[in-house]
Amino acid sequence: MENINIDKQRHVSNEIEMPLQNGFSNDFDESSVKKYSFLKGSIPRLRDGDPDVDRLISANKPVVITDSKLVQSAKDWNLEYLEKNMGNGKNFVFQSDTRKFMYHDEKRVTQWPGFRRPTRRYEMKFSNFVEMLQMGRERLYLQQTLNDTVGPNMVRDFVKFRWEWCTRYQRLCRWGDLTSNLLLVGMEGNITPGHFDEQENFFAQILGYKQCILFPPDQFECLYPFPVSHPCDRQSQVDFDNPDFTRFPKFQHVKAIEAIVGPGDVLYIPMYWWHNIESLRSSTQSNTFSHEVPPSVTVSVNFWYKAAAIPDRIERPLKANHKVAVMRNIEKMLTEVVGDPEEIGNMLKTITEGRYDHQQQISYDTYHQS
Amino acid sequence: MENINIDKQRHVSNEIEMPLQNGFSNDFDESSVKKYSFLKGSIPRLRDGDPDVDRLISANKPVVITDSKLVQSAKDWNLEYLEKNMGNGKNFVFQSDTRKFMYHDEKRVTQWPGFRRPTRRYEMKFSNFVEMLQMGRERLYLQQTLNDTVGPNMVRDFVKFRWEWCTRYQRLCRWGDLTSNLLLVGMEGNITPGHFDEQENFFAQILGYKQCILFPPDQFECLYPFPVSHPCDRQSQVDFDNPDFTRFPKFQHVKAIEAIVGPGDVLYIPMYWWHNIESLRSSTQSNTFSHEVPPSVTVSVNFWYKAAAIPDRIERPLKANHKVAVMRNIEKMLTEVVGDPEEIGNMLKTITEGRYDHQQQISYDTYHQS
Repeated sequence: MENINIDKQRHVSNEIEMPLQNGFSNDFDESSVKKYSFLKGSIPRLRDGDPDVDRLISANKPVVITDSKLVQSAKDWNLEYLEKNMGNGKNFVFQSDTRKFMYHDEKRVTQWPGFRRPTRRYEMKFSNFVEMLQMGRERLYLQQTLNDTVGPNMVRDFVKFRWEWCTRYQRLCRWGDLTSNLLLVGMEGNITPGHFDEQENFFAQILGYKQCILFPPDQFECLYPFPVSHPCDRQSQVDFDNPDFTRFPKFQHVKAIEAIVGPGDVLYIPMYWWHNIESLRSSTQSNTFSHEVPPSVTVSVNFWYKAAAIPDRIERPLKANHKVAVMRNIEKMLTEVVGDPEEIGNMLKTITEGRYDHQQQISYDTYHQS
Repeated sequence: MENINIDKQRHVSNEIEMPLQNGFSNDFDESSVKKYSFLKGSIPRLRDGDPDVDRLISANKPVVITDSKLVQSAKDWNLEYLEKNMGNGKNFVFQSDTRKFMYHDEKRVTQWPGFRRPTRRYEMKFSNFVEMLQMGRERLYLQQTLNDTVGPNMVRDFVKFRWEWCTRYQRLCRWGDLTSNLLLVGMEGNITPGHFDEQENFFAQILGYKQCILFPPDQFECLYPFPVSHPCDRQSQVDFDNPDFTRFPKFQHVKAIEAIVGPGDVLYIPMYWWHNIESLRSSTQSNTFSHEVPPSVTVSVNFWYKAAAIPDRIERPLKANHKVAVMRNIEKMLTEVVGDPEEIGNMLKTITEGRYDHQQQISYDTYHQS
């Protein structure tokens, strides 16, 4: 992995200056920005009201909206404010031995003998999380759905989210219900490695900066997700920083686009788009672990919406997102009926080999009559 | 293909003499029997009433029943009798430029550009079929479902089939309805190449001899059937006499069992069992094409039954016939949703490659943390 200082403008595409928002810090350490060779362009950064925003979101294309004010009311959600106002509820806090926090489905762990959890999950009060951050011994990532245990100030902030803004897109794009708002409080350098979600997402950045690397759904074959029955379903098996091209040869051809999001930015992450998100180092917050200074964290909130209903008529050729849905359903069906992943592999190979792998040859003409 | 004279006893297994039935001719030219290296054994030949018959049929294993008398009433069904008694209905007669008569689904022909029909299908009165046989210019195979256009003598013969015999197995094995009786009148040397049916079949031999080569459902991967949407669905793409091991490498490991069936024999062909059936040369009938002597034909009748209902609980590991059913359903689903077979191939490969082909590696342990 090359870790080269890059032109900040690369991330501030479309000749729109990254706006200074509401007095938020907007500084990040440029040397912490990853510069992968598969990064081929920037996600458009547009102002709210630009007709291209509607066009892109309607077309399930990612876009950064710079001044939606969606989470304007949460502008004070730094560590100190959150500690005071999150209430006494328990929060999910993940601990990782590396910078990567790969999601895994706890329910499936026992079904995969030999599976080693990539992270450990704890439940703790927010104050304990802050204490652990201040001890500086562990790499931690708080990922907690906002619920009714938050204190009154945060309830007020939450109610004041600019709901009419996201509800308009929910209607415009015929998405289903809002399912949850996930609060993410991460240490700088934390990485949520490449994965896709099965929901639409407005990713609202509140504090600090994140490098968001997105791959379209048609890059599925280059990203080699774990089998659907694996605890790491929907996550790429490929280690982006040290890809195994023998096992994952098509990763050599993968193409991504990126955005750096800062306070006030909202990134639309369309369903089935892969995303790898890294908390950048701040240049104004503390970037060392120490008991004297508050630790540097990033704060984001996800707005997840259920997908739009499948249209009555699926157009052919199938779009990449429909293909992904079909492939996942086949895997799920095989998992249910066959179970054993090795046997599933054998069956898929039996369907394919000599049958669907030389299409030009599948014709009775090639049946040698004798 | 080796075409060596073989010991007739090889086909008369289990130390039971091939019985002389009802004055039928029981001679065949031993040199017309194929001797493939993949033939690994004989299908048991058992007398009706042998408890092993029930055991084998209940277990979906092929068996030849030598004296069931199932089609005893049809013992006179030679060409002359059939010409007199088949009535004036039209019969499906296939013509092939080779000895092989590969089935193809006429409805799917237009969906496969470049598909060349392996046979041509005509509809003609039985008397026209006999005339064409006597002209001796074409290789022909009559394959006609018995229906109400047959003459009164044949109706009487049909009614006198020993229905209670096959109905007992229908009940014992919980098969569905009898769907049809197909009359097969073939020229000696005719081959129905390797395929499987999705129904249970009692294959009753009436006149002449047939070499029946059967492969269990677990040989699916060695036999490379055409895609389900292809006109030749359920037929092997492999030319047994000249196999292309580059395209079909696993055919090198294929294993089959065989039986020679003669007048009075009934072969149980279980659903999903592959069968390649060849009409042997007679040594007593005419074996030349000539206007002077009646042409040599084989006569058989299929009794096709719908499959038993799928059990409520499918045992794991899945049995080969269940696997075939699952694989066919996946192919059908993909055909319906995706359409293009090339795209289906790509999707199946995308599901498999790097994901289900190195199972021992699919574990988070192999995700190199960095």
